[in-house]
Amino acid sequence: MEIKINLKERDIPRKWYNLAADLPTPMLPPLGPDGKPITPDMLAPVFPMNLIEQEVSTKRWIPIPGEILDILYRWRPAPLKRAVNLEKYLKTPAKIYYKDESISPPGSHKPNTAVPQARYNKQFGIKKITTETGAGQWGCALAFACKLIGLECKVYMVRISFDQKPFRKIMMQVWGANCVASPSNETNAGRKILAEMPDTPGSLGIAISEAIESAVTDPTGQTRYSLGSVLNHVLLHQTIIGLEAKKQLKLAGEKLPDVVIGCAGGGSNFAGLAFPFVADKINGANIKIIPVEPTACPKMTRGPFAYDFGDTACTTPLLAMYTLGHAFIPKPIHAGGLRYHGMAPLVCQGINEGLIEPKAYQQLQCYKSAMLWASTEGSICAPETSHAIAAVIDEAEKAREEGKEKVILFNYSGHGLMDLLGYDAFLSGKLTDYTLPQEEIDKYTEPLKNLPKAEVKKTGKW
Amino acid sequence: MEIKINLKERDIPRKWYNLAADLPTPMLPPLGPDGKPITPDMLAPVFPMNLIEQEVSTKRWIPIPGEILDILYRWRPAPLKRAVNLEKYLKTPAKIYYKDESISPPGSHKPNTAVPQARYNKQFGIKKITTETGAGQWGCALAFACKLIGLECKVYMVRISFDQKPFRKIMMQVWGANCVASPSNETNAGRKILAEMPDTPGSLGIAISEAIESAVTDPTGQTRYSLGSVLNHVLLHQTIIGLEAKKQLKLAGEKLPDVVIGCAGGGSNFAGLAFPFVADKINGANIKIIPVEPTACPKMTRGPFAYDFGDTACTTPLLAMYTLGHAFIPKPIHAGGLRYHGMAPLVCQGINEGLIEPKAYQQLQCYKSAMLWASTEGSICAPETSHAIAAVIDEAEKAREEGKEKVILFNYSGHGLMDLLGYDAFLSGKLTDYTLPQEEIDKYTEPLKNLPKAEVKKTGKW
Repeated sequence: MEIKINLKERDIPRKWYNLAADLPTPMLPPLGPDGKPITPDMLAPVFPMNLIEQEVSTKRWIPIPGEILDILYRWRPAPLKRAVNLEKYLKTPAKIYYKDESISPPGSHKPNTAVPQARYNKQFGIKKITTETGAGQWGCALAFACKLIGLECKVYMVRISFDQKPFRKIMMQVWGANCVASPSNETNAGRKILAEMPDTPGSLGIAISEAIESAVTDPTGQTRYSLGSVLNHVLLHQTIIGLEAKKQLKLAGEKLPDVVIGCAGGGSNFAGLAFPFVADKINGANIKIIPVEPTACPKMTRGPFAYDFGDTACTTPLLAMYTLGHAFIPKPIHAGGLRYHGMAPLVCQGINEGLIEPKAYQQLQCYKSAMLWASTEGSICAPETSHAIAAVIDEAEKAREEGKEKVILFNYSGHGLMDLLGYDAFLSGKLTDYTLPQEEIDKYTEPLKNLPKAEVKKTGKW
Repeated sequence: MEIKINLKERDIPRKWYNLAADLPTPMLPPLGPDGKPITPDMLAPVFPMNLIEQEVSTKRWIPIPGEILDILYRWRPAPLKRAVNLEKYLKTPAKIYYKDESISPPGSHKPNTAVPQARYNKQFGIKKITTETGAGQWGCALAFACKLIGLECKVYMVRISFDQKPFRKIMMQVWGANCVASPSNETNAGRKILAEMPDTPGSLGIAISEAIESAVTDPTGQTRYSLGSVLNHVLLHQTIIGLEAKKQLKLAGEKLPDVVIGCAGGGSNFAGLAFPFVADKINGANIKIIPVEPTACPKMTRGPFAYDFGDTACTTPLLAMYTLGHAFIPKPIHAGGLRYHGMAPLVCQGINEGLIEPKAYQQLQCYKSAMLWASTEGSICAPETSHAIAAVIDEAEKAREEGKEKVILFNYSGHGLMDLLGYDAFLSGKLTDYTLPQEEIDKYTEPLKNLPKAEVKKTGKW
């Protein structure tokens, strides 16, 4: 038995899968400031029209252009691996497979959408892309994609990360991006904040405002903005992960998995692996599909389903999603990629239907799981990925108790080599568990009642 | 055409290749303090006898035990990749292939020998391994191997790296190793230095002395020492790289390469890729085989061939090698792995025969090559690896000038994600070129004239 299942480049998926085509009830539309559904034209100053078309598409399959595949081949197809050593340690009859997305040059799944986004912008005549980044994972992926495709890239990086975590900033610079600390003096939004709070550590909300402003105010009209998760077209691009996994499971002699798991911040790595299997579940397959979030930022398990803004500054359209409120700022847990207040609307609709069953895990259990992974499988996972591994271990132990030879599939979304300070804090006993108090949730979601109401639509089949 | 050539696990090489069996003139023996060849028994307090047997073996093929392969499968066989984007950029008719050794969990080729060394120690009844590490690459690999195999691991890390580069130290701790700053208070050697120079930044020479002392003085007799390069058995274990590459080149439809390149500090990643092709050259193939060193530490291109100690404290046997003198301390260039004063004796004998043709490169050209690599192939290489890439670019440009479709093969020995401060220094214009002055070489090699003389033996065939 081979523990690494490699797909030939010629067998890479040629189409992305769009879950919107198969959801049994239609998605609630994004709303504009007037409370009415927004039209593609309203997004045109922010995104190029070819990406907006993908954002609103309900076609099931969308072809992947050859020029994009030519870039993805640098690391894709990504291997499917079997965690035989963890299985042995857990004495489980379950077979644990994972997609290794850590092997991309930026070290995570993020370039799967950064590359197509850069390519479509280039094709649309755009010269420069702006974005925000927290710890820097998304900024690195977009810098990488822009360098390979030949676009300028400007990254607004939350100041506290810019100052305290210089390494991803250097990576962005190696790939030619212009990375500045946010708030900056380069935008009205940034200047305003700096005038009020000169010593602010910054926030993702501020950085988003700066990135959007600098895109839409470029007088040449040749700059657009890019987002690394949440939106439909971002999740679409990530489905190459699950589509590859399907082919690889078949090569390994498996049928469908019994359990599919991914960590979820904005939802993109989870959706990328899971959506092609959600399609099977819609068609009758019995698959447990689990996105995992931290108990410190439990939007899926404890937030309301509501219309909310995507950013703190309330500049984006309203999205119907599970949310803790756009003003909520989670505790600084080390899984920076899981600290977003909302969840991708496509994932949320899957939750409403009962197709997707979210779980929340405490920080310490996640780090313990990461340590067990390092001592059995050998690699050091990203703090975000450790959430998926914690759930995998639970499912594998349940399979042992039930005596069932289940197939568990999860997304190894990134390596932890740029996040070693979190491991250091864990090993030094400095980390603690944290459950978000109900009062906090109530406080930050109360204002959502003044926004249009998002009705939970479901067929009740699952 | 596929740009990644993956080998099936079942096609992994089952034997290591030992160049000592095929060198046309025999190696000069290591000498003891009395100037006489040392015997295996003399090494027994330092290394387990099963590794000593490999060290002195002249058998051509040495079987790789299945238990070792079972661990290597976590990341091996490593892919052979073709750098088509760099080829296009250079407009070269040459085909550039590389073995991607950066995909191991510690991020370099080092675990290829760390795993067998840990396994043989375990088999010999050893409970604990000690070693030294500079920047931490070797310490990480040994910590990783010991964790997977179930051995204690103690790493003496040069103090200045321990203080200034905490990330590889954290990696070692994740893999359960006990990593202390050297000089430490735990050994006589360390205490003596600390008493004389309480503020010393430490050196690899001091750390080696501490690691050896703590191994040989363990009263239980169950501790041994481990070295990550230079020695015959270390190079032997690395030949899995070149043996895999041979099979993969065949799968890619190629015969033998025209040029084989690797960076060389102690020699292990270079030898691992090159030695199986040196065998072809001995048998008549026309292959240019190039180890690349920095001009700041030019032992192969400018040092004498002489008997010298492996460590600053003169505790090791005398080895016949190209050396800048055991007391030489190179400038702090960012390619920490290329700062060793000597070169593996097997590589040196290949140089004496004319089979191996070393080159030296300046730091700035290496970083420029690394930047070109990142902007074409997309990945960020280790500063050491950039030396190989600089030579690859030269050879590819020469092929363009000659109009020849050469096959160039090199070793991508590691990624640079733990070495981003070097890139930052380069991008900020803080790095300079440096050629070691002849007076320095004369000064540090003068004392070698008092040691036994190493005669250059060669057949003159190449």
